Amino acid sequence: MNPTTETTWPDHPFIAEMIRQTRAFDSYGVHEQLSPFELLQPYIVTKAQRREMPIIGDPDEEILARLKAYYSAIAMRIEAGCGSMATPLFSLSHEGFGRVIISVGKLLVLDRSLRDVHRFGFESMDGLCEQADTLVNAALSIIRQHPDAAAA
Amino acid sequence: MNPTTETTWPDHPFIAEMIRQTRAFDSYGVHEQLSPFELLQPYIVTKAQRREMPIIGDPDEEILARLKAYYSAIAMRIEAGCGSMATPLFSLSHEGFGRVIISVGKLLVLDRSLRDVHRFGFESMDGLCEQADTLVNAALSIIRQHPDAAAA
Repeated sequence: MNPTTETTWPDHPFIAEMIRQTRAFDSYGVHEQLSPFELLQPYIVTKAQRREMPIIGDPDEEILARLKAYYSAIAMRIEAGCGSMATPLFSLSHEGFGRVIISVGKLLVLDRSLRDVHRFGFESMDGLCEQADTLVNAALSIIRQHPDAAAA
Repeated sequence: MNPTTETTWPDHPFIAEMIRQTRAFDSYGVHEQLSPFELLQPYIVTKAQRREMPIIGDPDEEILARLKAYYSAIAMRIEAGCGSMATPLFSLSHEGFGRVIISVGKLLVLDRSLRDVHRFGFESMDGLCEQADTLVNAALSIIRQHPDAAAA
């Protein structure tokens, strides 16, 4: 898929959540006028683009908002899958390193190290949805293994 | 206890860990010359002092280092009590709000909202140790309730 020639995204339940979360993190309404297609476009970062992105200094606020929207959308999908509240927590250093966790009750259902946050993005929207599915399914499987901690 | 007239701290296992962690967070060795007594002195904030501390703007780096040293010391005591690695994670906003969690395996053994981080401190060192004991014991109790998630 070449995003520059498309005007819609794949039909995947994750897309609607991504749009919702991306709008939620747009605190100042800067992107209010954008179509859903334009709104999600910045999540697509090709290998060539990635190579050109510097990883010095602080990742800018726009990238941090996208990173948080992405993992918040994952939390919402986990919530939809298990029926309990899923809460993301981000710990980001100024150098683009960090960690994100998602908890359900007292259970850590997702725990990822982050690096090169400056370059956060996906090759394609299909790739983004695929990775999200993988993370959501892994989280739901952890909940099935430890239902008591998830309910605590 | 009036810390200004004391030159030692109470004999409590948490104190040694606090000294270790406070030194660990002193990345630039600014406090290298301080005695253990002087090193922990800034953790004591009386009610009167607290009232005078402004809570606008960013909490300064020294306060953040103390906050992180305190919860890292708690993580170390949890680790000593259960024999598994305990990892703290901090998520702090610029306005002195935030959340700290400590995880053991896939189990959240501590989960606290933080506010007024600008005023982080304790009435006395006995009070600090007492709160630490309470948090460590609560964490160890959670581990006993969900041993499978803690071992995952």
